[in-house]
This record gives sequence, C-alpha cells and structure tokens, in this order.
Amino acid sequence: MNGNMSKTLIILAHPKIENSIGNKIISTILLEQENIEIRHLDKLYPDFKIDIKAEQEALLAANTIVFQYPLFWYSTPALLKEWIDQVFQYGFAFGKDSYHLEGKRIIVSFTMGSPKSDYPKEILDKIVFPFQGLAKYCKIEYLGEIYSNDIHEYYEGAKENAIQISNKHSQKLLALIKN
Amino acid sequence: MNGNMSKTLIILAHPKIENSIGNKIISTILLEQENIEIRHLDKLYPDFKIDIKAEQEALLAANTIVFQYPLFWYSTPALLKEWIDQVFQYGFAFGKDSYHLEGKRIIVSFTMGSPKSDYPKEILDKIVFPFQGLAKYCKIEYLGEIYSNDIHEYYEGAKENAIQISNKHSQKLLALIKN
Repeated sequence: MNGNMSKTLIILAHPKIENSIGNKIISTILLEQENIEIRHLDKLYPDFKIDIKAEQEALLAANTIVFQYPLFWYSTPALLKEWIDQVFQYGFAFGKDSYHLEGKRIIVSFTMGSPKSDYPKEILDKIVFPFQGLAKYCKIEYLGEIYSNDIHEYYEGAKENAIQISNKHSQKLLALIKN
Repeated sequence: MNGNMSKTLIILAHPKIENSIGNKIISTILLEQENIEIRHLDKLYPDFKIDIKAEQEALLAANTIVFQYPLFWYSTPALLKEWIDQVFQYGFAFGKDSYHLEGKRIIVSFTMGSPKSDYPKEILDKIVFPFQGLAKYCKIEYLGEIYSNDIHEYYEGAKENAIQISNKHSQKLLALIKN
C-alpha cells in the first residue's frame, strides 16, 4: 500500500465529547496513530449543514473509513445519519459508473451504556445492518464492527471499568484497522 | 375511548415533501380524517432545533403515534432521528416512574423507491427494529409497520403506479390506526 491508500478516516459523532468516556478515550488513542484523520462532525457541523464536497474528498483520500459514535436508540446520532444521507449521493457513492468508494473498507465502532446482556447477537445484527446495507449498495467492503457495553459512570467504580473497556475497545479497533 | 384518547399524532419527516409522491399523498389523506394531527418536522424545525416541550406535549395528547417518512439508507431521515433522541428523554419516556408514554401505540409507516424484491422479510425486520426497541424500552405498544415499495417516477408509468400504491398504503395505515 502507498501512503495515501493506507490512510484511515474516522467519522466521529458525539454531541458532548467533553462529557464522554468511551468516545473520548477511543478518539484520543486513534489520534496518536499515524495516517489516521478524525473528522468530528459535531465540531465541524453544529448546525447540521454538511460540506458535502469536503466530506466526499476526505472519503476519497482514505482507504479505511471508521464510523465512531455512541449508540442512541439502537442507531446512530442524527448528525451522523445526516452526514450519510448528504454525502453518500447518487453519482458519487452509487449509480451507473459512479461507485467512487468501491473497494474501500468500512468499520463500525460504537459504545453503549447498557450491559452486554441487553444486546444479544440478533440485536447487534439488526443494529449494524444499515451500515452493512450501505456498504453493499456502494460496493464497499464491510470489515466488521467493534462495540463495547457498560460505558457509563452511574455508580462507584463504573467509570474505572468503563475506562478499561474503552482502552480495550481502542486496541481491538486498531487491530481491525491494520487488518 | 374518549375524544382525547383516540387522537392520532403523525410525526412526518420528509425534507422535500413538495417533490414527494408517497408521503404527500399519504399525509394529504391522513389530514382529511378526524382526530389526526400531523407535525411535519422539516417545516417545524428546518434548523434541527427541536422544541422538546412542545413535542412531548403533542405526544402526551395522543393515543396513537405514527412515524411517517421515506426510508433513507435503511433508516429514518436524520431529522426524525434527532427528534427521537431529543424527545424520548430519561425522565419523560423512560426511567423510574417516568414512563409517561406507557400504553400508547406506535405505528411505523415508510415508503421506498426500490422494488419489493430488495426488501425480504429479514431485512424489513432489521429496518423496523429501532422502533420496536424504542417502544419496548418505553412501555409503548408497537402496533406494526406499513410500508410500500416502487414509490418513484423513474420511467414511463412509474408515477401512476406509485400513486396507486400510495393510496393503498394510506388505506392500510388508516385501518391500522383504527384497529
């Protein structure tokens, strides 16, 4: 791979990253790596007005795209959904001779407050499906998902546990990126 | 049922309703009915800044809540997701003694451009799951989903077909509301 092709783009969506445990740790660790760019949508587009051209160029420059977010109601934060709806346009991401992201790789990476027992495999399969469907439609490789539960500080010791889990999450994500 | 309890609230999300076939027809037919209120999120909140209090009051006044939208990338338009994330708060929709929507009913109603063959049952199950999960979490009854394919005007005769399908969709939706 050449320098350009090994680039990883992190699309980070978290409306309150300063209060975050998981997404703050994960994005901090990712930023320390070479060839990783993070675009924090909430900082770039607090008014939900996406610069489509800039985002499409960022996608074209990357080989691997990571969607990093906290799970909200079994789905992404709204700003990430707006980003997808605006950026993955006909004529760019799909349509006759217009699969400009073909062959790139997608990873989905999300955190949850709830315990693992609330998220059996059949529910996780449903949660990640929209990204799998998007990847397939746009001829992108769906590389897999990394997710963590119990990311909260609701009781004594919970935050320390969440920090440990988030560190592990980061390492698993990095391993998948380098796959 | 008394007058208040039989009220139906339609949460409509469509960024370009004037160009719409399905959602325009369905919402027009719904508006002709008694005891149905439509809140068109794109008209109310073009800047994505939801009036949480007003939306929660509208929910409390209704017995049946219909989410009406075009399917975008196997999910809702972003504004509908923002509405859910903002309005279904801890202390209002869930949390100790705070299930204020308990016993109400949810219907999911969406249109798709793609043909039915692209949407087998296992995919539709995944598409509606976030609403089923939301309903369960908030002790709301998930009444079911109404969906239609082939809503577009890409070739000769397609629009007439889409209009027929949309009319049928409206009748099925009204029957489910009155269930």
